[in-house]
Amino acid sequence: MSDAEQTRKSLKNIALFKDASDSFIANLAQNARIQKHSKGHVLFVNQDKAEKFYIVLNGWIKLFRETLDGAQAVVDILPAGHIFGETSIFEDDVYPYSAEAVEPTEVLSLPLEVLKKEIEENPKIALSMLSAMARYRRQQDREIEHRTLQNAPQRIGCFLLRLADQKHEGAITIHLPYDKTLVASRLGMQPETFSRALSKLKQATGIKVKGATVELDSLDQLINYSCAVCSSEFPCKDLSQ
Amino acid sequence: MSDAEQTRKSLKNIALFKDASDSFIANLAQNARIQKHSKGHVLFVNQDKAEKFYIVLNGWIKLFRETLDGAQAVVDILPAGHIFGETSIFEDDVYPYSAEAVEPTEVLSLPLEVLKKEIEENPKIALSMLSAMARYRRQQDREIEHRTLQNAPQRIGCFLLRLADQKHEGAITIHLPYDKTLVASRLGMQPETFSRALSKLKQATGIKVKGATVELDSLDQLINYSCAVCSSEFPCKDLSQ
Repeated sequence: MSDAEQTRKSLKNIALFKDASDSFIANLAQNARIQKHSKGHVLFVNQDKAEKFYIVLNGWIKLFRETLDGAQAVVDILPAGHIFGETSIFEDDVYPYSAEAVEPTEVLSLPLEVLKKEIEENPKIALSMLSAMARYRRQQDREIEHRTLQNAPQRIGCFLLRLADQKHEGAITIHLPYDKTLVASRLGMQPETFSRALSKLKQATGIKVKGATVELDSLDQLINYSCAVCSSEFPCKDLSQ
Repeated sequence: MSDAEQTRKSLKNIALFKDASDSFIANLAQNARIQKHSKGHVLFVNQDKAEKFYIVLNGWIKLFRETLDGAQAVVDILPAGHIFGETSIFEDDVYPYSAEAVEPTEVLSLPLEVLKKEIEENPKIALSMLSAMARYRRQQDREIEHRTLQNAPQRIGCFLLRLADQKHEGAITIHLPYDKTLVASRLGMQPETFSRALSKLKQATGIKVKGATVELDSLDQLINYSCAVCSSEFPCKDLSQ
């Protein structure tokens, strides 16, 4: 596939652009640049002036914020097909977080100006953006809820369930998408806390962890343990959207 | 002031409606109902079918979710002038949380259908809604960050700073807006955790707590203690918007 074709395909797969006009997609594609970043490369820093938004083509992007004394809070870790930086439009044109490649990563870089103009002129894109924001809001609500109600082992169980095919029956193997240190920081835990919590989860549910894979006789082992302390029902509704 | 005047005034004070047309405000006002609710009254339950959205006229509304075993996660506690239930439009027309009056409370009840139609037809309202959602997203990001980086006493310090006039210099008295049990649940803490954390905060910063008032020689006592572990700068930017 040529770069131009890949770009158009990547754009059309983004939920935000499902009702976008062909001319808008063409305009975006024309101004798109594919960038390759090595592990550890910082694309932009929280509060930088925002002129681009991005789509992950492959690899992983970490969104985070840092305090003055260097402590880091991970906002999200995004796989291929995810968009970031786009809400800067509503943040006085500055990025609301920093972004870093956590492994060799390819992104599509796109001009915010083109998106901004389209949102102002095309109510359909504005509505798609509102739906996307509402979806993100629900995810954040769940995140806050879980940090209040679930203990650390339950939160790891929930993280694993959200990686699995939730309609699967019987034995299943779940693969961690990135290394355990990163999983810990995604869950807002210190590495030692994460390690202790994982041991407890293994004891409580009988799951087997081998390196980056987790083996279960059935998802029920985790559902009984983690979902009792969640206000949503299993399977997770937001994942099917 | 007549009920009709109060309704129009309440609507015009909502950021979401700052670019609304007079005909839309008139249409909303015509379909508005003032409701009085006693303490503990539940207005709607998470996942109920949504036909109304609300504006708090006076009193306090608690938004929350409950797990199957009855544990409660507080999403927010809203004072007068705040809107809730409006994002149900983007949630398959169901409420994403439950709402309860935490003291005798007056609300304005408004039809979601009228808002939905306006958002679809008027790009200005869609843009105002996007700005409001972005603002809420930032608040949630901060909430998640603080639950990761701040300890319990620091989070109480932050809560107090956000209640104060942040431009004030010298001695200041901060009034708790609702009782301490509710402050604890707003911060996602058990009452005992809150009580221990408040003692630590007093020791560390020298603030004086008398019932529902907190006395400080200067805001610096709390800023030094709480804001070092926050990625935003003081004064809090999101409060000035």
